[in-house]
Amino acid sequence: MNLAGRNLVTIDDLSNGEIMALFSLTDEMSADMKGQFGLCQGRVMASLFFEPSTRTRLSFETAMHRLGGSVITASDVGASSLAKGESIADTARIVGSYADIIVIRHPWEGAARVVADYAGIPVINAGDGGHQHPTQTLCDLYTIFKERQTIKGLKIAIWGDLKYGRTTHSLIFALARFGADILFYPSPGLEVPQHIIDKLTTEYGGEVERVAPSDSADRDLLPMDAIYTTPSSPHQLAMMPDISVQVELQEGVDALYVTRPQKERFTAGEEAKSAGGKYPVVDKKLLRAKAFRKTLVMHPLPRVDELAYEVDADERSMYFKQAARGVPVRMALLALLLGTRELSIPGMDSPAPMEYPVYHHEISPRCPNPRCVSIQSTETKYLKSEFKIVKTRPLTLRCVYCEHGFEPKFVASADWHEHKIDTRKYHSADSHWVTTIRPENLIAFNTEEEAQAHGFKPSHFTGGHH
Amino acid sequence: MNLAGRNLVTIDDLSNGEIMALFSLTDEMSADMKGQFGLCQGRVMASLFFEPSTRTRLSFETAMHRLGGSVITASDVGASSLAKGESIADTARIVGSYADIIVIRHPWEGAARVVADYAGIPVINAGDGGHQHPTQTLCDLYTIFKERQTIKGLKIAIWGDLKYGRTTHSLIFALARFGADILFYPSPGLEVPQHIIDKLTTEYGGEVERVAPSDSADRDLLPMDAIYTTPSSPHQLAMMPDISVQVELQEGVDALYVTRPQKERFTAGEEAKSAGGKYPVVDKKLLRAKAFRKTLVMHPLPRVDELAYEVDADERSMYFKQAARGVPVRMALLALLLGTRELSIPGMDSPAPMEYPVYHHEISPRCPNPRCVSIQSTETKYLKSEFKIVKTRPLTLRCVYCEHGFEPKFVASADWHEHKIDTRKYHSADSHWVTTIRPENLIAFNTEEEAQAHGFKPSHFTGGHH
Amino acid sequence: MNLAGRNLVTIDDLSNGEIMALFSLTDEMSADMKGQFGLCQGRVMASLFFEPSTRTRLSFETAMHRLGGSVITASDVGASSLAKGESIADTARIVGSYADIIVIRHPWEGAARVVADYAGIPVINAGDGGHQHPTQTLCDLYTIFKERQTIKGLKIAIWGDLKYGRTTHSLIFALARFGADILFYPSPGLEVPQHIIDKLTTEYGGEVERVAPSDSADRDLLPMDAIYTTPSSPHQLAMMPDISVQVELQEGVDALYVTRPQKERFTAGEEAKSAGGKYPVVDKKLLRAKAFRKTLVMHPLPRVDELAYEVDADERSMYFKQAARGVPVRMALLALLLGTRELSIPGMDSPAPMEYPVYHHEISPRCPNPRCVSIQSTETKYLKSEFKIVKTRPLTLRCVYCEHGFEPKFVASADWHEHKIDTRKYHSADSHWVTTIRPENLIAFNTEEEAQAHGFKPSHFTGGHH
Repeated sequence: MNLAGRNLVTIDDLSNGEIMALFSLTDEMSADMKGQFGLCQGRVMASLFFEPSTRTRLSFETAMHRLGGSVITASDVGASSLAKGESIADTARIVGSYADIIVIRHPWEGAARVVADYAGIPVINAGDGGHQHPTQTLCDLYTIFKERQTIKGLKIAIWGDLKYGRTTHSLIFALARFGADILFYPSPGLEVPQHIIDKLTTEYGGEVERVAPSDSADRDLLPMDAIYTTPSSPHQLAMMPDISVQVELQEGVDALYVTRPQKERFTAGEEAKSAGGKYPVVDKKLLRAKAFRKTLVMHPLPRVDELAYEVDADERSMYFKQAARGVPVRMALLALLLGTRELSIPGMDSPAPMEYPVYHHEISPRCPNPRCVSIQSTETKYLKSEFKIVKTRPLTLRCVYCEHGFEPKFVASADWHEHKIDTRKYHSADSHWVTTIRPENLIAFNTEEEAQAHGFKPSHFTGGHH
Repeated sequence: MNLAGRNLVTIDDLSNGEIMALFSLTDEMSADMKGQFGLCQGRVMASLFFEPSTRTRLSFETAMHRLGGSVITASDVGASSLAKGESIADTARIVGSYADIIVIRHPWEGAARVVADYAGIPVINAGDGGHQHPTQTLCDLYTIFKERQTIKGLKIAIWGDLKYGRTTHSLIFALARFGADILFYPSPGLEVPQHIIDKLTTEYGGEVERVAPSDSADRDLLPMDAIYTTPSSPHQLAMMPDISVQVELQEGVDALYVTRPQKERFTAGEEAKSAGGKYPVVDKKLLRAKAFRKTLVMHPLPRVDELAYEVDADERSMYFKQAARGVPVRMALLALLLGTRELSIPGMDSPAPMEYPVYHHEISPRCPNPRCVSIQSTETKYLKSEFKIVKTRPLTLRCVYCEHGFEPKFVASADWHEHKIDTRKYHSADSHWVTTIRPENLIAFNTEEEAQAHGFKPSHFTGGHH
Repeated sequence: MNLAGRNLVTIDDLSNGEIMALFSLTDEMSADMKGQFGLCQGRVMASLFFEPSTRTRLSFETAMHRLGGSVITASDVGASSLAKGESIADTARIVGSYADIIVIRHPWEGAARVVADYAGIPVINAGDGGHQHPTQTLCDLYTIFKERQTIKGLKIAIWGDLKYGRTTHSLIFALARFGADILFYPSPGLEVPQHIIDKLTTEYGGEVERVAPSDSADRDLLPMDAIYTTPSSPHQLAMMPDISVQVELQEGVDALYVTRPQKERFTAGEEAKSAGGKYPVVDKKLLRAKAFRKTLVMHPLPRVDELAYEVDADERSMYFKQAARGVPVRMALLALLLGTRELSIPGMDSPAPMEYPVYHHEISPRCPNPRCVSIQSTETKYLKSEFKIVKTRPLTLRCVYCEHGFEPKFVASADWHEHKIDTRKYHSADSHWVTTIRPENLIAFNTEEEAQAHGFKPSHFTGGHH
């Protein structure tokens, strides 16, 4: 069994068993780094960075060189073809005809998906806006796994900017899949987005408990916000009175995953708030708490002020190890996707991927995420919006590119009006009608203007809007 | 016979036979890409891009890596040595002492010529301003040749920005040399420059027929502007009444070569005009015309709006093939210029290169092309203007660097005034005197001020200017 | 004996014997460049350029490729991690876990020292602000050595910007160590900084003679400013009446080392002065002087206007040879520091490195050099100022990072006040008290405000300041 020709766009592209097999190959390569030279000789990796990055790019390029492969790099792409108005699909097709594998970082969410759709060769997402950064997640998981020999059942605390940190979003899903419990410690105003929470409960079957301010006696030290528990954990953690949180924490947190404030993605309001300087700091003092006695301190780096240098010498600090392990993790991944190594995949359960009905009417709302690849002017020339219908009450669509979920406000049914133009009526999405529309007939609108622009008229069921 | 040590600055640096031999090596390499690894092991290619480019640079770098060679890249050169005021000649000499071959892109026209003059190693022009881009031309020719097994006698339509597109200029000359007929379909205001037309008729011996608006019944569909026919074509195409154009076109166009508007080179007036949005679009509808039934649709990419995405799936679309074939074409070229492969050159006729007398008086006009390398302040420290005298009525000089032709307005003769200062007179270039001056004595001026600054006085033959 | 694992941060990191052994390896490699391919196969060099540079970066990268090694490059670092606020130490640690050797250029003086302290792998300084550029110095020394078979006893003139040229500073110390005499020909206002002069006399034991305007009959031609003579030279040059300078110069200068004005480091005043255009030019006319009959004309390049192109064809011109020799010099250096080659070091005297007492009180002045790495806001989070006490009258500290010397104005003694808070008094640094403070007790302040901010009070010995 092999992974040759596969893509890694989101962490969901690899099953739990495949990830464990990748880790076992990583172990093997780590043990003999020099012995891997030549494994990818004659292969060419294209490193396309449409956003500045040194760490991730150099890590991938080192990995390819240590396998004996070659690298072509465009780290200044923003200034070149893009400036001539080229679409991502064209770039993907061209570079796909040069190289054997593409590593792509791009500010638009879903961009790596588009590259994978058009390149014709394996594509690895090295970060697409605030969406995902799956190889960082692999480094994080690998570090936890190396230090604890398991992920299932661990208590992992996520600290800092839980809103914009793409590394944390990928990580949260991966941890849920492997059955870890997650404690959320957001910086105020940078809580986990609701669509992440929704995905956790609907797709991974776990529970999320909000922690009210009074719930935690450690409140001053640990401003915990919510706890996610996996289905396999008995609810001792989630269904707790105050005291049980306390007791649970006494048993210790396995890892504390710290992230910097992603200021480059802040809104003006968040920027102002952050200037107030309440971002929490992990330092020696914090780590003296009993709950952190054996905690792995992790960080995807770069750090700013949220992680004190005095922690560097502490044996619990894992962040430089995370970075160092990125090279063999990426070596293993490149060799697998290029098909120069094969794997035996352990028979391991992954949660079955959720199957949602697909929205496919010609008339379609735009994804409301302003950073989504599907709405950029260079991309709309060839790219159609595509959504999964993840819920009906309230009606919720998820963009297949950026995976943002949103709730269209109005609906119509293709069944009602085909060939009967006078029946082209639209209804409020929260009216009971929505559940009677079959997915293949669903038409959704974000606004009434949109509906009317397509020739629809308000019905009795447009809610309080008329 | 081999090409080791040769340069490729303009497409004229390769004879027709050499190009055909290169294509045969390209075929051989395409058939066994992996087998080429190691052919240039230990060789270093310097990739110097003074203008942003991703596609061309990555294509060259991939080619070198697939041959097993190494690459040093400066794609940020604009920001580095240049900013310290270094001349192109110094850069060429230094990099020439590091690497084994140089690939250069530069915004100044003629820059690649200067690099070739100073580097001491083979130099490939990867685009110098609006001048030439010969390896793109090789990819274009190779694609036509692969699809039609010949170039001679084909009808090739060139579409879009025929004024600034350097790829079209190189291509036009190459097609003429191989005996193709060319149909010009310019976007209004972006017609083929006169100096290109002149070169076609004087150096390749063909004929150019302007097509008046009423000449073409297909006017609405195909705003054809001029037709170039090679000497070997009987004049059925060029010397035609309206009807014959029609008939000719019924037989079909072999290839339609589309280019984007090179907006970065537009004047303010052209920019305004282009904002009006009359740039023609190649789409499914256009391609339904009978003349295009079997037409290869070509584009050097990147495209903007002039080529619809709906054409991508059409089997006539060649543009992604053109790009993909760039890698083996460049592999063959690198191996030949580095001397790691040799060729047997077929005995094939190239038009004999035109020999022009050279202008070589100390007093010399400046090339009037503002993008010419020879007039840039860092280069005038060591570079002398050099011209070929391509015509005498009207007197026309062609810069040896950027190959722009221009008509100096005033002349004098070195013969008349040496040691006789009172005879230093200048004359109008359109007076009959000009034909009596021997080339080695010719002194030309663009303005009277220039002449007077060198101590010359007006004669009776300065025309209506006094 | 080998150099594996060693750093090259300043030229003092290599002894004279090691430099000579490196040159012998350079000879060997130059003689068989192709034979070196494979020597560093599988090794990865990280090329981190936080300041634009083409020449130096490409030279290092070529060297690594010619050894068969791989290269990862960040030449756009200014725009990436740094912009996210990352410290140099973190960058060093991360890249140190990817690569086998780091080449670093950075605008902050002392940055390469910090990288070497944290990377855990060999680090080569490719230029840190105005501090040092030791591999350029090796190329310069190697060129002199190749052309003259010795360095000891040569007369080397340094011409141009002697204030900001980091290449000249490294070179001056190296020449002094090898026993050359140095003639300083600064552009007015760009004289050698006093701290360089001080180091020459105190650490290399030589003498520096200022040349008053009237001292030199060649004044118009050669605006010599000072002469440094090594201890091994009898004082015939230094202790001279006018006439002996003349005589000495008649015997000829061995090398004339020209540098461009480092305008990017000029103050506004220097900028204005330089616009006046008095920067001296080396041209054919100057080189006609008898003293220059057999002089090697050297320049680290890039040049601007200080070295005329007409000299290029002169056999005395060495600058393109310097650049070309940079490749084998750097190949030898990389192979040695990576441990893929060993050396037998000739038993050669280096001046014994000066041992200075170290300043190590908790309370410490900041380095006053605004470009010093130790005072940058991202670095003060983990970096403590460190100084050597190089003199006591006047009290002079030298920063261990940027090596700038400075004279703190006030002092106190840790011995006087420990546990006796009422005795925390500070004194003028030029009072006699300073000599009575033992180095381990020394506390220094740049200003009285600084002293008072730490709770110190003025004493009777604060000088005329009260």
